[in-house]
Amino acid sequence: MSESPVVILAGGTGGAKLARGMLDVVGDDLVVVANTADDVEIYGAYVSPDPDLCTFWLADRIDERGWGLDGDTFNVMDGLRELGVDVWFNLGDRDLAIGVERARRLAAGERLTDALASLTTALGLGARVLPMADEPVRTEVDAEGRIWPFQEFMIRAPAAGPIEDVRFAGVGEARATPEVLDALSRARAIVIGPSNPVISIGPILAVPGIREALASAPGPVVAVSPIVGGQVVKGPTERFLAWAGHEASAAGVAEAYDGLLDGIVADEPVPGLPALRTDTLMDAPESRRRVADEVLAFAGALATRSDR
Amino acid sequence: MSESPVVILAGGTGGAKLARGMLDVVGDDLVVVANTADDVEIYGAYVSPDPDLCTFWLADRIDERGWGLDGDTFNVMDGLRELGVDVWFNLGDRDLAIGVERARRLAAGERLTDALASLTTALGLGARVLPMADEPVRTEVDAEGRIWPFQEFMIRAPAAGPIEDVRFAGVGEARATPEVLDALSRARAIVIGPSNPVISIGPILAVPGIREALASAPGPVVAVSPIVGGQVVKGPTERFLAWAGHEASAAGVAEAYDGLLDGIVADEPVPGLPALRTDTLMDAPESRRRVADEVLAFAGALATRSDR
Repeated sequence: MSESPVVILAGGTGGAKLARGMLDVVGDDLVVVANTADDVEIYGAYVSPDPDLCTFWLADRIDERGWGLDGDTFNVMDGLRELGVDVWFNLGDRDLAIGVERARRLAAGERLTDALASLTTALGLGARVLPMADEPVRTEVDAEGRIWPFQEFMIRAPAAGPIEDVRFAGVGEARATPEVLDALSRARAIVIGPSNPVISIGPILAVPGIREALASAPGPVVAVSPIVGGQVVKGPTERFLAWAGHEASAAGVAEAYDGLLDGIVADEPVPGLPALRTDTLMDAPESRRRVADEVLAFAGALATRSDR
Repeated sequence: MSESPVVILAGGTGGAKLARGMLDVVGDDLVVVANTADDVEIYGAYVSPDPDLCTFWLADRIDERGWGLDGDTFNVMDGLRELGVDVWFNLGDRDLAIGVERARRLAAGERLTDALASLTTALGLGARVLPMADEPVRTEVDAEGRIWPFQEFMIRAPAAGPIEDVRFAGVGEARATPEVLDALSRARAIVIGPSNPVISIGPILAVPGIREALASAPGPVVAVSPIVGGQVVKGPTERFLAWAGHEASAAGVAEAYDGLLDGIVADEPVPGLPALRTDTLMDAPESRRRVADEVLAFAGALATRSDR
């Protein structure tokens, strides 16, 4: 990591794609701070869906199905089904190996920060993927008359109906890690990726110390709107924004990050905030690199203008 | 299980092969009591090598390599190696699924007896494979200047050199299960399989209650010698017999079971004990069935003669 990294806060696929584009632009100066509130312990493994999604994207190992390692097999899951297990959470064999080794490291007392670093190292990455915290934080969703652990909500809950509540269990006992605080304090730009503001970025900002670190960071803080062409590209962002009282628009996203942003990047106008209007669809390497490039230039201009 | 089952005490491959032959002879009347002191918790899984070996043999699912499920793949192990893990304990993907599901059941409070039964049921077996105890018992070997957990000793230790000590950690807190005691008390024959008397059958007999149950069982107790043609068919039996002060012969085996046997089956003479001399090599379905048949007839004759 250089003296002045580019930090991306990332949840799911949108943040991971932007991170991949940014890797082309700044190389090993990239630091991703990833949501770990979707982590799940299952099949004897510790699975970190969001950090791993970012890592697989950065290492060009993401499978075309949109998650998991490229070309992974699913023989353990098939074996579980043969035993009569209801396999609601699907995990590839090599993906399981990653989670099994991670569980072993954590059980041996290793910090999650170091356990995740061992994967990026094994995949040959110079850029870093940091967990938002070393302590366990778990998103729980109150909907359909019950409390759902996040992964179960995403996979098993009906896809409609209002969200009654969202909470990040354990976040009060979590702390921003030295690595995250250090990266934020030295960042030339802090980019909030185009991820769900409520359930992907929300847990990161809820970790004690991170919101304060963003507010006091010398580098500009810029969000990229997850709303593309008036629609959410992927996932249940709209339902969660509605629960939080924000509309599914770049303006609603800016509102969700109230007071934290120096600017926003979106494909629609955003009143009351420095905004870069550009095409934010990142469906190919070229568009991912272009968006990353534009975001970084925009952040640089903001830094100069505000004389931060 | 019938009113009067045939019980086989079994450790590794020899006991499993005899059990497979016995399945042909008595069908679902077969109850295997398997050594669980070689169980190992690894990769987030609870692996029971001896019970599973018996189960795979009984279900005709044993792989030709001599362990594991037929045609299993090893993608998780490959994944672990890619992460730089020293994979000293090799486990197939479907085998891992079995161990992962078993770990989940045990963590949920299920007894090992029931967790093993769920596998035999899933594989369609009517015969039963019982663990020697529900409590954890672990064989430890003192050799080469250190204490080895059993699996590590078998896989990683030098293949020569004397055994200094053998102990069954936890066996003092273990208890014979109701299922094992019930089967022994009603058995028409109790057969000690051709397994290592010290480390395969030894732990079973060390479980408080089992030796007493054998001594008071109305059915005859017959051992099948693991020495075939003057040699051990498989594994380090000789070194362990030497440590225990017995020679590697049917007579030495009889001595190792001192006082417990009503008779022994071997391919060599055994003085001082009713003995059936026959070819005990079980390298094909026919020989396995024939040996099982002869063992059962011999036990029947002993029962009649001693008017037990």
